[in-house]
Amino acid sequence: MVNNPHPIIESIVWTDQGVQYLDQTRLPWQEHYVITKDVETIAEAIERLEIRGAPALGVAAAYALVLSAAEARAENILRLRFEKAAERIRRTRPTAVNLFWAIQRMSMVLEKNKGSPVQEIIEALLKEALSIHEEDREMCRRIGRHGMSLIPDLAGILSHCNTGALATGGEGTAQAVITTAFSHGKTIRVYADETRPLLQGARLTAWELRKYGIPVTVIADNTAAVIMKERKVDLVIVGADRIAANGDTVNKIGTYALALLAQFHGIPFYVAAPVTTIDLATGSGDLIPIEERAATDLSIVAGTKIIPDDVSVYAPAFDVTPHRLISAIITDCGVLYPPFEEGLKNIRIHPAPLPDD
Amino acid sequence: MVNNPHPIIESIVWTDQGVQYLDQTRLPWQEHYVITKDVETIAEAIERLEIRGAPALGVAAAYALVLSAAEARAENILRLRFEKAAERIRRTRPTAVNLFWAIQRMSMVLEKNKGSPVQEIIEALLKEALSIHEEDREMCRRIGRHGMSLIPDLAGILSHCNTGALATGGEGTAQAVITTAFSHGKTIRVYADETRPLLQGARLTAWELRKYGIPVTVIADNTAAVIMKERKVDLVIVGADRIAANGDTVNKIGTYALALLAQFHGIPFYVAAPVTTIDLATGSGDLIPIEERAATDLSIVAGTKIIPDDVSVYAPAFDVTPHRLISAIITDCGVLYPPFEEGLKNIRIHPAPLPDD
Repeated sequence: MVNNPHPIIESIVWTDQGVQYLDQTRLPWQEHYVITKDVETIAEAIERLEIRGAPALGVAAAYALVLSAAEARAENILRLRFEKAAERIRRTRPTAVNLFWAIQRMSMVLEKNKGSPVQEIIEALLKEALSIHEEDREMCRRIGRHGMSLIPDLAGILSHCNTGALATGGEGTAQAVITTAFSHGKTIRVYADETRPLLQGARLTAWELRKYGIPVTVIADNTAAVIMKERKVDLVIVGADRIAANGDTVNKIGTYALALLAQFHGIPFYVAAPVTTIDLATGSGDLIPIEERAATDLSIVAGTKIIPDDVSVYAPAFDVTPHRLISAIITDCGVLYPPFEEGLKNIRIHPAPLPDD
Repeated sequence: MVNNPHPIIESIVWTDQGVQYLDQTRLPWQEHYVITKDVETIAEAIERLEIRGAPALGVAAAYALVLSAAEARAENILRLRFEKAAERIRRTRPTAVNLFWAIQRMSMVLEKNKGSPVQEIIEALLKEALSIHEEDREMCRRIGRHGMSLIPDLAGILSHCNTGALATGGEGTAQAVITTAFSHGKTIRVYADETRPLLQGARLTAWELRKYGIPVTVIADNTAAVIMKERKVDLVIVGADRIAANGDTVNKIGTYALALLAQFHGIPFYVAAPVTTIDLATGSGDLIPIEERAATDLSIVAGTKIIPDDVSVYAPAFDVTPHRLISAIITDCGVLYPPFEEGLKNIRIHPAPLPDD
């Protein structure tokens, strides 16, 4: 059996009219696509989480940099606009390493083409952005293939946040493991925790899995321990926004609690992420900056304020899961088992071959 | 220092016009009181969680039984109506033992007054219901006094659901411990987890604590592990819907996870509940029926559906916290430490004296 080469949902694509993205804040109520040539629109879409998911942010950043350069007539103007756009995008979300990594790749292309005709520079930037996107699609396929053997038949799977097509340029990270196992004939049920504050599990993962025809049950975040105790789930699989050199993993708030609860119940806890998420320059998770979101992320649900005025709110967007709680890290270059340090260092250099079907 | 003898908020009171209750589903948006003489209105209010909290349910059930009898002109009619009302109320929420306990007390009064003039029976029923309510107020005061020494000065306290005046006929259970410590001059900050699905922490606890002037910060349920790791909280205190003979505690969904996370982080985990919550006839928590709420509790927030259609939902209302995870049980008759079995058996017979101020 072969995976569907194109994901069912494309959250972000390059078109002749500019970047087209699906506004994820309107899901599941509306499937609303935005087409824009404006860098600021994309930057704000990232800040508002209309575009979200670490890999998708890398793709969006790359396309935004193409847009920043597209109308320039002289190289110095192009460079000024590019730098301004890069600076703007860096400020949107501090935790996702893919954003910085994509900007770096695009900057290198700009350097390499120094002195070339402006039109050639723009074409080189577009080519690089399209490559980043295509590599992302391929990354998703590879994560799915490497990870699927970890999913037993008849598995109950607990997922957190959204790690699917909406979060990436392809089929997803953790969710690609699920969809690949499913497309290879495994019977599964996904328990999607709703993932407060922004309900990515309830709104996005449930919406995506239904499109794939995968059985999904939504639970409140605080119900995860109960379904573990009731043996409804056999494993937990999550994505990652950044993985430190020792394997400590930054991911959506709530991940750390799930990892602790999984360990207590003897349930494997898997992280699935591309190798671009690995940040070898950062030794451990406590060194990674954690974005704190605005109080309104938590206090306003679907337009209604659910917390009395003048009550304070603490809403970190991410947390750090210590490497000791992680059973395996599934990447596009293979699956790593503890201790992670050596593997994380070498996996880009010595990727594992893709498993046979 | 003396506690305020009257709680600031009265969630349920008996008036000449019938029962007056605060509709908790409208908080924090509206402070809307309902006055009714209709048993069905109260039964539905209990089902819809307009009236909620184990002790408050006992008070509401008692008043509803007074209402059922109030218009009867003959004893046989009175008994028929009483039985029908009792039957209706028993069906509202299966987990709260206080409901059954209050019905039993009222039935005993009915038995004791067999053959008395109807008006005397009605008066005896009202007297008993008012006693249940007054005992509940006293119970709250005593829980607060017994528990306050467990709250260190400058404590960060994690609370779950709502255990305050809204949940009881008095100042609350777990929350009475907090308000009593505060009124005795201790500096505290409460972290109220929002408590999905019905947001009792975000809507009700935050609203109440603001009325008392107690600093409160709302967090998502999935953020509890992070504030424990960050040492923002020194203890967790929760209420109970039922306590089995061995100390296993049934409480709002999410409690079990908090107890596990507290144990992992070395943070004490306290349960505060009246002795009427102790169910000696039930040996352990796994024997207690757990109410499963309708999917809409989770899928609709403030009137908006947040989960796509046709996606299944699993929404148990309660979970069981094994006694091994509980540091102490604070009751109106004193504080119990593990192992709980003997203490739970004897505490009604040999209550501890109230601590001095």
